[in-house]
Amino acid sequence: MAKYPSQPKHLTALELPLPPRSKLAPDLQKYFAVCDAKIGFLPNVLASYTFDEKKLRAFIGLYNDLMLEDSPLSKLEREMIAVVVSSANRCYYCQVAHGQAVRELSGDPALGELLVMNYRAARLPRKQRAMLDFAHKMTVAPDEVGEPDRAALRKAGFDDRSIWDIASVAAFFNMTNRVATAVDMMPNEPYHSANR
Amino acid sequence: MAKYPSQPKHLTALELPLPPRSKLAPDLQKYFAVCDAKIGFLPNVLASYTFDEKKLRAFIGLYNDLMLEDSPLSKLEREMIAVVVSSANRCYYCQVAHGQAVRELSGDPALGELLVMNYRAARLPRKQRAMLDFAHKMTVAPDEVGEPDRAALRKAGFDDRSIWDIASVAAFFNMTNRVATAVDMMPNEPYHSANR
Amino acid sequence: MAKYPSQPKHLTALELPLPPRSKLAPDLQKYFAVCDAKIGFLPNVLASYTFDEKKLRAFIGLYNDLMLEDSPLSKLEREMIAVVVSSANRCYYCQVAHGQAVRELSGDPALGELLVMNYRAARLPRKQRAMLDFAHKMTVAPDEVGEPDRAALRKAGFDDRSIWDIASVAAFFNMTNRVATAVDMMPNEPYHSANR
Amino acid sequence: MAKYPSQPKHLTALELPLPPRSKLAPDLQKYFAVCDAKIGFLPNVLASYTFDEKKLRAFIGLYNDLMLEDSPLSKLEREMIAVVVSSANRCYYCQVAHGQAVRELSGDPALGELLVMNYRAARLPRKQRAMLDFAHKMTVAPDEVGEPDRAALRKAGFDDRSIWDIASVAAFFNMTNRVATAVDMMPNEPYHSANR
Amino acid sequence: MAKYPSQPKHLTALELPLPPRSKLAPDLQKYFAVCDAKIGFLPNVLASYTFDEKKLRAFIGLYNDLMLEDSPLSKLEREMIAVVVSSANRCYYCQVAHGQAVRELSGDPALGELLVMNYRAARLPRKQRAMLDFAHKMTVAPDEVGEPDRAALRKAGFDDRSIWDIASVAAFFNMTNRVATAVDMMPNEPYHSANR
Amino acid sequence: MAKYPSQPKHLTALELPLPPRSKLAPDLQKYFAVCDAKIGFLPNVLASYTFDEKKLRAFIGLYNDLMLEDSPLSKLEREMIAVVVSSANRCYYCQVAHGQAVRELSGDPALGELLVMNYRAARLPRKQRAMLDFAHKMTVAPDEVGEPDRAALRKAGFDDRSIWDIASVAAFFNMTNRVATAVDMMPNEPYHSANR
Repeated sequence: MAKYPSQPKHLTALELPLPPRSKLAPDLQKYFAVCDAKIGFLPNVLASYTFDEKKLRAFIGLYNDLMLEDSPLSKLEREMIAVVVSSANRCYYCQVAHGQAVRELSGDPALGELLVMNYRAARLPRKQRAMLDFAHKMTVAPDEVGEPDRAALRKAGFDDRSIWDIASVAAFFNMTNRVATAVDMMPNEPYHSANR
Repeated sequence: MAKYPSQPKHLTALELPLPPRSKLAPDLQKYFAVCDAKIGFLPNVLASYTFDEKKLRAFIGLYNDLMLEDSPLSKLEREMIAVVVSSANRCYYCQVAHGQAVRELSGDPALGELLVMNYRAARLPRKQRAMLDFAHKMTVAPDEVGEPDRAALRKAGFDDRSIWDIASVAAFFNMTNRVATAVDMMPNEPYHSANR
Repeated sequence: MAKYPSQPKHLTALELPLPPRSKLAPDLQKYFAVCDAKIGFLPNVLASYTFDEKKLRAFIGLYNDLMLEDSPLSKLEREMIAVVVSSANRCYYCQVAHGQAVRELSGDPALGELLVMNYRAARLPRKQRAMLDFAHKMTVAPDEVGEPDRAALRKAGFDDRSIWDIASVAAFFNMTNRVATAVDMMPNEPYHSANR
Repeated sequence: MAKYPSQPKHLTALELPLPPRSKLAPDLQKYFAVCDAKIGFLPNVLASYTFDEKKLRAFIGLYNDLMLEDSPLSKLEREMIAVVVSSANRCYYCQVAHGQAVRELSGDPALGELLVMNYRAARLPRKQRAMLDFAHKMTVAPDEVGEPDRAALRKAGFDDRSIWDIASVAAFFNMTNRVATAVDMMPNEPYHSANR
Repeated sequence: MAKYPSQPKHLTALELPLPPRSKLAPDLQKYFAVCDAKIGFLPNVLASYTFDEKKLRAFIGLYNDLMLEDSPLSKLEREMIAVVVSSANRCYYCQVAHGQAVRELSGDPALGELLVMNYRAARLPRKQRAMLDFAHKMTVAPDEVGEPDRAALRKAGFDDRSIWDIASVAAFFNMTNRVATAVDMMPNEPYHSANR
Repeated sequence: MAKYPSQPKHLTALELPLPPRSKLAPDLQKYFAVCDAKIGFLPNVLASYTFDEKKLRAFIGLYNDLMLEDSPLSKLEREMIAVVVSSANRCYYCQVAHGQAVRELSGDPALGELLVMNYRAARLPRKQRAMLDFAHKMTVAPDEVGEPDRAALRKAGFDDRSIWDIASVAAFFNMTNRVATAVDMMPNEPYHSANR
């Protein structure tokens, strides 16, 4: 039977001139080499941005600050938000890539599926459920978010710094989901089978 | 790291008296043994219905007619409809179980993911895309389905018997999705890792 | 003035070869004769399925189990669920046929209208209102149904067996509504004037 | 069996001091007497407004202009718009009262049901279907109505004066539906059985 | 840079024969002269109706009763409802005209913007917030309004007469918003800069 | 009458320790001084981020790349996208701030209002309308964006590089709208009266 014929072969649906990696600035080449080493491949989202180094750097700058820097939220919590937001927006790229991250960081393959499919079906601690409810509402009804929603987070045990980070991570994936879908960005195939 | 802690342990959230399999009618015991042999386990949906043999038989009767009997639709096509409908309704059980069926029948792990996550991102033949568009519209806007939608299926190459089957399969999962979510039915764990 | 010109004349919009009743299996002929006697005519939904006796039997099997077998829910309660679900999905066939059933079983013509038009306007006992709220939510927001909804049913006085039946009946009409609308099934005209 | 227990007994859910008809201004008493004679009863909507004669007069003024004055639209067409709008808004009072008007003016009991339940299921001339599509879109997505929608009406044979009247009638019932539901206004019972 | 090129130049998108003001009935000419004096110009909505004096009078009759007559609601409160409803329906004409009225009556330019953009972001007394929540729900989910919503208004301090007026004003703008958008009615330009 | 009482006085609803500007890194102090000089004040969004210089820099980096760097889209076009997206999400901060930018860059006060209130009412060149339709659909139905939408942009005259920028700007405001609403960020008051 055919292997992966249903996933489009392109990086994105746009024709943009992507330079070979050897033509990128040295620090970017080095950054990509770190990706190769840690992830095993260069995530397609990064390759997609190489048509413009300034845009690539701006994206990396924001991504790394939100997902990798110190935060009251664990990396798993941030990835859980990423998947719930991406599921609500039905972004294929981000559900694949961050679903894998949740499976890896949690050691719980079902958790990745639950958050992709319907996070409400998951058995979660109240605090994490409150966090995901807030991220979900921000995604599907941003105009209705208000003080009662912030109060619910505080009641669940989050301080204001944590609320900022929940909001920022959920908002970030509302951005990247839309870029990825708008340009039909395709995820790297190894994500599919990893950590199952 | 914890193994499957996020998926609830119960069969369903309802307390219904389930008899041991050895107390079921002999033909049902035999049917379940066939499931064990072919699938490797008894799907939880069947176990859930054992509190009432009449209900179990009625469910099996309709399921088998729609999914296993002769039809102008292939078994894979019927499973693809199952996943797209279940994704639109965000039914955890059905996305897990029928996502696995799509992976198995297609030999294309990404296809299962694409249909769970956003079927519009898949590269599909026009005919199958038309079929899924119809099933999706039936699910999310049943009141708006009309002659133009049937005409689109005919134009894509489906005859009226095929339209009946597309409609029936899509409608069936609109039923089972709702039962499964309403009672919080949990899928068998082996589905998660199969055919990745 | 014209009589019923606005309701299409067909059984369904699909061209499927329907045998004369005299060619059906004897037990089905007998079943249809019982319908004639009890209802005064053969419901079009049954006629629609005669192109395939297996499908007809599977449909009858499930329908009869859910709507006519013993249940903690009365037949009127099950018909009330049928109408509320069919109204939410705006299925013409099912609102006509089950609206009549509600009028007949309740002896309350306005109740049929209320459930077709907006069940929230009806003066109902709290228990029946809770039942209809659950069925309605299952219909329009199946992904959001969860433990708080089941808890509301329990608080209203339903046990778990009743919850299964509410869920199953509501889910069943989410199936039949979609088949009926997808194939443009038309109801028998006598329903309109009965029990007014 | 109980007669009409499900329809609330009140005129509206608000406690407003309604004078006896004999205390109203003579011209209003006369107008109400004409209603009695022509309809057989005083529509509850008029009774509801008697707490303030100015409001009653303003309502009658607009209603009569739109529904009874000369217009390129027939009275039946205007009532058809009334029912489709009221169905989209699920206003119990207006669906009951104007559903009866459609049955009476058309001599087609099924037409009243079709427009209450799902106007898309009705077999209608293209022109009337275009009219109802416009009225429906104005109701459920007023922000999206634009030049293409007006062009569709013109193509169906309506001139600009007709478009004004379609828009005005559809808009009027978007008002009255909301008043009626907001105050839980109940329709006169004789509507239910009339013209079946 | 061009002045107001983005706002269409027409009064409405319909070609309806509008007489010169000098041909209108004397009382209407006098009414329009009062508008000129008080507002500084004749609101385009009134000019739009001059093709039919009966329709113009019916509109003025209802408008003046609701917005200018005695009511437990202040004129500012009624204008606040007008803007919140018009924002939910995204009616350009009414947001411009009544947004200006809110700015003028409140002396608070930000209030007009808040109600146009998202009334939930405004710091309002609980009573006014409850009033706007009711008007908003009537607009976007009229079928879901019921006793709990009326109870919330009563708890916030409104009596039944006030509830009638809140409902009537909110409903009225659900009418006028739809007429204005359906015919693409354009607001007078001076509204834009007034009371900033 | 009170001046601006309806707009909350806080910068955001979160208590985060904001240092005095004099304690920021010199380059940030200089950047803020440029804001003071060019805009007349420091936009509150920048002040909000000062609790963490890394986050502030990441935000500035992405913002400046998207809104100020070379692009096939003019600065006005990018601000128009910002307002249409912010209107769809009903973000108060962003509609105020970027509505002002549209008024300033276009010299057309009505354009700012049109894009805040309902961009469909604006008279725009086909190309800009196509751009805003794409940005709007990305915002409200991101899962439905696909090849036909990209094709519509190409047909309107945009090349693939432009499509990337439209997508990126629309996506960016889907992020910032959600951060701003989630933390209840308030805009600087001078925006309200500028360029009217």
